[in-house]
Amino acid sequence: MIRIGIYGYGNLARGVESAIKKNDDMELKAVFTRRDPSTVKINTAGVNVYNAKDILNYKNDIDVLVICGGSMSDLPEMTPELVKNFNVVDSFDTHARIPEHFKNVDKNAKETNHVGLISCGWDPGMFSLNRAIMEAILPDGDSYTFWGKGVSQGHSDAIRRIKGVVDARQYTIPVDSALEAVRSGSRPTLTTRQKHTRECFVVSSDPKENARIEKEIKEMPNYFSDYDTTVHFISLEELKKNHNGIPHGGFVFRSGNTSDGVKHVIEYSLKLDSNPEFTGSVLIAYARGVARFASAKNYGCKTVFDFSPKDISNLSYEELLAHTL
Amino acid sequence: MIRIGIYGYGNLARGVESAIKKNDDMELKAVFTRRDPSTVKINTAGVNVYNAKDILNYKNDIDVLVICGGSMSDLPEMTPELVKNFNVVDSFDTHARIPEHFKNVDKNAKETNHVGLISCGWDPGMFSLNRAIMEAILPDGDSYTFWGKGVSQGHSDAIRRIKGVVDARQYTIPVDSALEAVRSGSRPTLTTRQKHTRECFVVSSDPKENARIEKEIKEMPNYFSDYDTTVHFISLEELKKNHNGIPHGGFVFRSGNTSDGVKHVIEYSLKLDSNPEFTGSVLIAYARGVARFASAKNYGCKTVFDFSPKDISNLSYEELLAHTL
Repeated sequence: MIRIGIYGYGNLARGVESAIKKNDDMELKAVFTRRDPSTVKINTAGVNVYNAKDILNYKNDIDVLVICGGSMSDLPEMTPELVKNFNVVDSFDTHARIPEHFKNVDKNAKETNHVGLISCGWDPGMFSLNRAIMEAILPDGDSYTFWGKGVSQGHSDAIRRIKGVVDARQYTIPVDSALEAVRSGSRPTLTTRQKHTRECFVVSSDPKENARIEKEIKEMPNYFSDYDTTVHFISLEELKKNHNGIPHGGFVFRSGNTSDGVKHVIEYSLKLDSNPEFTGSVLIAYARGVARFASAKNYGCKTVFDFSPKDISNLSYEELLAHTL
Repeated sequence: MIRIGIYGYGNLARGVESAIKKNDDMELKAVFTRRDPSTVKINTAGVNVYNAKDILNYKNDIDVLVICGGSMSDLPEMTPELVKNFNVVDSFDTHARIPEHFKNVDKNAKETNHVGLISCGWDPGMFSLNRAIMEAILPDGDSYTFWGKGVSQGHSDAIRRIKGVVDARQYTIPVDSALEAVRSGSRPTLTTRQKHTRECFVVSSDPKENARIEKEIKEMPNYFSDYDTTVHFISLEELKKNHNGIPHGGFVFRSGNTSDGVKHVIEYSLKLDSNPEFTGSVLIAYARGVARFASAKNYGCKTVFDFSPKDISNLSYEELLAHTL
């Protein structure tokens, strides 16, 4: 059994917890929280919740620690620190800061003989893995990534920061005609606006403010100004009833040529009822790989680029040969 | 530069040759044929064609030998023999005999310190890799593989063996409603007939024989009797004009649940203008991995399950971190 610890207990952690139950070689050993442990109710019977500051007491009870913190401020601190004492997995997703995060984790992991897998999940994660393999196969080609339809937490938060907004949910939606253009193999050049639209469901505190709120959303730089954005004002009840889920998904394409006029399109897509539950499932599959790397003394910082299918599979190599190949 | 040899020179070999030209770390060093070398014209200037029986003279000139033979009788003999002197890649695709082929190649590869990658391509190959990863991520789920729309060489050959058939082309076509049922996440159970249809374009020597030929096709066990099959009789000119390509493709799905009522669908698909050119591109990407495994003394028989994205990528790890993750 691979003994998993969860550090931090929010949506992603609950997704990790669900995933552990689906894998019969995994057990949840402990949850660590920075809150008062007595206030944290988890979904697994018989597993204790401990204060994060006591975590070193459980160093020998955990094979892989899954760190469920935010990429903005939590993970850049937590992962390099925790990897000094644990094999860890995180889902750090600030693409621009990945090389720096890698360096910090790698140094501490190698000095202390641990494995630290960073930026796991679906993007970065499964999408990255597919981009890398597709690009190796079709070097003369173009890659395309689309997200959605799904809830963007960052964009929803940005709307909530506008004065007069009680709550909000933002969906990122890939544009069908852009998907079709890519599928045709014509290797189109697509602008930001051509690839995605943004649909916002907003609860406002005062209908008289709606016009101003809508304008502020649509003109918000980086988040909305480069997109065709639709804003719907709805009641809090409706938001809670119809927009309570956390679905997501997306598409990765490679369109390439192998000789004059001979074209190929590779497409990978995800349609997810729950972003955190799927992400948690990816983290747990790769936690298996981390445990194996640690046993093989293959220490240091790792990403999805380092793991072969065999490294993360629960099947024996003989089973893979006979039934999956 | 990775020096590639090609053993056998048919459609797949020409696909491998095209792929080498798209990769700037690869060079075609030599082609080996069992025919009279003077009768074989290849598409790369300045590269020699040698008689296959002289191949050991070129042992030190080849880093990876790509074996382009048939799975029925060529590869089970060729790959275990050639791996005694070369690092090799093959595309052995008789699924039921893979474990036996693996064993034969593994023994000889380990005894002589070589790497032998078998069953590479897209199915087996990319589809297998995706099945393995998808199943690791969603253990509570069902996998589905669909082929087409594309030309099945085996089914086309089967039709050609019928008396009175001059030539024939058979397309395997996935059924749209079955694809949609899988995409819905409902995890349907699908029969052979529900998944694919078969469309045949047949040139007959005598129109009076068409009814008999059509009946023989539709009732042919294993190949057609379990499918809804359509037969079109056309002229040889039309066959050559409209059915000369070797397109193919297909879909791999994993539909799974991570908790009660929470479902996810992963889809991987290929749309290929040329089956042999795409297959050749996969073989060449993995030949890079084989060369690296040989340098690292990681000998023995290998499959796509053994290679990480990093092993086959032409990008440095730093580039992958910065641009692909």
